[in-house]
Amino acid sequence: MKSVYAEILTIGDEILYGHITDTNSQFISTALDKAGIQVIRKTSVGDNREAIINGLKSAEAVADIIIITGGLGPTKDDITKKTLADYFQTTLVMNEAVLSHVENLFASRGRVMNDLNKTQALIPANAQVIHNAVGTAPGMWIEHQGKVFISMPGVPHEMKKMMEELIVPKLRHHFQTPAIIHKWIKTINIPESTLAEKIEKWEDALPAHLKLAYLPKMGQVRLRLTGKGDDAGVLNAELEAQVAQLIPLIKDHIYGYEDDEIEKVVGSLLREKNKTVSTAESCTGGYLAHLLTSVAGSSHYFIGSIVAYSNQIKMNELDVSPAILEAYGAVSEPTVIAMAEGIRKKFGTSIGLATSGVAGPDGGSPEKPVGTIWVAYADERETFAKKLTLTQERMLNITLTTNFLLNFLRMKLSE
Amino acid sequence: MKSVYAEILTIGDEILYGHITDTNSQFISTALDKAGIQVIRKTSVGDNREAIINGLKSAEAVADIIIITGGLGPTKDDITKKTLADYFQTTLVMNEAVLSHVENLFASRGRVMNDLNKTQALIPANAQVIHNAVGTAPGMWIEHQGKVFISMPGVPHEMKKMMEELIVPKLRHHFQTPAIIHKWIKTINIPESTLAEKIEKWEDALPAHLKLAYLPKMGQVRLRLTGKGDDAGVLNAELEAQVAQLIPLIKDHIYGYEDDEIEKVVGSLLREKNKTVSTAESCTGGYLAHLLTSVAGSSHYFIGSIVAYSNQIKMNELDVSPAILEAYGAVSEPTVIAMAEGIRKKFGTSIGLATSGVAGPDGGSPEKPVGTIWVAYADERETFAKKLTLTQERMLNITLTTNFLLNFLRMKLSE
Repeated sequence: MKSVYAEILTIGDEILYGHITDTNSQFISTALDKAGIQVIRKTSVGDNREAIINGLKSAEAVADIIIITGGLGPTKDDITKKTLADYFQTTLVMNEAVLSHVENLFASRGRVMNDLNKTQALIPANAQVIHNAVGTAPGMWIEHQGKVFISMPGVPHEMKKMMEELIVPKLRHHFQTPAIIHKWIKTINIPESTLAEKIEKWEDALPAHLKLAYLPKMGQVRLRLTGKGDDAGVLNAELEAQVAQLIPLIKDHIYGYEDDEIEKVVGSLLREKNKTVSTAESCTGGYLAHLLTSVAGSSHYFIGSIVAYSNQIKMNELDVSPAILEAYGAVSEPTVIAMAEGIRKKFGTSIGLATSGVAGPDGGSPEKPVGTIWVAYADERETFAKKLTLTQERMLNITLTTNFLLNFLRMKLSE
Repeated sequence: MKSVYAEILTIGDEILYGHITDTNSQFISTALDKAGIQVIRKTSVGDNREAIINGLKSAEAVADIIIITGGLGPTKDDITKKTLADYFQTTLVMNEAVLSHVENLFASRGRVMNDLNKTQALIPANAQVIHNAVGTAPGMWIEHQGKVFISMPGVPHEMKKMMEELIVPKLRHHFQTPAIIHKWIKTINIPESTLAEKIEKWEDALPAHLKLAYLPKMGQVRLRLTGKGDDAGVLNAELEAQVAQLIPLIKDHIYGYEDDEIEKVVGSLLREKNKTVSTAESCTGGYLAHLLTSVAGSSHYFIGSIVAYSNQIKMNELDVSPAILEAYGAVSEPTVIAMAEGIRKKFGTSIGLATSGVAGPDGGSPEKPVGTIWVAYADERETFAKKLTLTQERMLNITLTTNFLLNFLRMKLSE
């Protein structure tokens, strides 16, 4: 099985200045990865002849496929085609098929073509045209000393259509590419290093053609297991067998797989079990309700929330007794339990969730420093509370608290 | 004025596979641009020793500053530090200051350190530590043959804090870069094209060394006016004079300047005017409360919220009469007015805000299609309601509705 390597070269000053997020190269990466082509480098350079030539040389030295985007517009700062022609020591020639396509596009939009627009139909003499069905700048395919150079416009919807419909099939055919398959395992409420420790033996025993990556994101760690092989069916079975071995090691921390998000997983479970939920939030200030209601169709299981920032509201609305608040304070086990039970009763839901803590940066004390947060869960059979000891960062504390409760809810619903 | 060039080298298989959008390099570009440093190339390579070494060599050949992110975690696929040590023909040494910082972080979170975590404190012998206040992986600053190599963790919030607070000032000092000054004008509730039309004459009259950029973001458009010059004082006065001319053209849509965020501006006004606020949310599902409470110290003016997803809760908790719900429905002017007045009365706040609408993607009808949203504001003197006609996108509708109410609140508080 021969590996096929690609480099992505994006051209445009706007990328270097940071004025745009380069989402094109991510799209191209994903498309190539699915086609079994490995991207080994991405490079972005400005609208500058020398930088483009150096980029092409350097890419040609390491990759079989060089994918170029940007710099194909009709204005002066768009110099990709001229530079490609120079690089291959050839000239730009007028392509009649492209010219008539551009003319038709202008006619259909009721616009008049000028000389600049006509230059869209010029392409290097050694290039095959890749048709741009939705725009005026043609794509190009150039074969040179066993390598393939592909140039596409930088306009995302033009590039995407061209890439998916024409270039990926042509590359697959040209290179007879192998299969690359990914499996995602999404974990929550476990630090990356603890996770690594728990699965170390399993990870060390992975065969060489399977590779594991850890991708942390706001209190979650996504695991990605990647395999490469000739037979997609065999490879997939092998990956599934490995994932099956991994699951028992970290079961409570896995909330889902592939495209799953915790709030969607919880939503599906609530619908499936025909349960409803309400929240009583102090330190999370509505974020738990927001995440639950960010899912389409959440009105089927989410009934409502009371964000009780003041003690007055904790007493009046959630029936937390003044004696409890006086004896233990708002950030305490008895208070958060009363909140969870109070909201559940008040809104008549199957489950009540509650939070009360010191999110920071102010409000900490020696006994209850910033990051001290109590959470509670109440259903018809039981009430559970737990103290979390989190960070100094307000938003991170809000997120980690929400993660904890969503995962706890997931586990209770899966019992 | 000597130009200073930088290359950004991002490390991580996840970038090449297209599993994440590389927003780090955009952030770094923008920060360097502000500091008068020109990014001439961006390169992304995988977690692969040879690729990283080649990236470093190639960057060193063209740039004065090489900024590296990623590959600093404690797990096996993170090889940046070892590779840097090899590149500079040195070794990794245990840094006691970093070790004690990591130990403190673990202790403050009530977690136990393992051997993997200790490796976070290893750094190449020729590196200075850049303190990571919010995480365990230290940044590094290495000077080598007149060039500066900087390595940062790939976790966005850690990298951003380090870049802004420590690295940019250090680079500015080290390279004595020219003055580049930006003025930010933050607008809300006005589409980019309408904004451009309103300020067209002012923009056309700008002198050549001042440049305007439009940066749209979830229903807001941030305007950035940038000037470059040798004398920071003169340049600043010039920019301020231009901003003073701009303000009257779009007054109602400007909610702030520089680092202002709408929720912080509103929070400061509430504190200043000694007013309190509560929210009654249907379609925004707690997002309005979340934004208000994401501001440190918000407990001074935010009292609480009721997220009333079901009609039952609108009636029981907010005193919306069944007759109104029956005659007009939940998404209507009388309902949203009753909600705003109801929450204000119930929670005893100066101001009550309410939302009720069809956020989508489901729930639309011919009379009330997806994107139909009613909002209301009530204070001791008046109640105001308005119908918004928004988009097909659930999260965008939630954000735009929240933006509208926060800006309305800002205007009322500024009267």
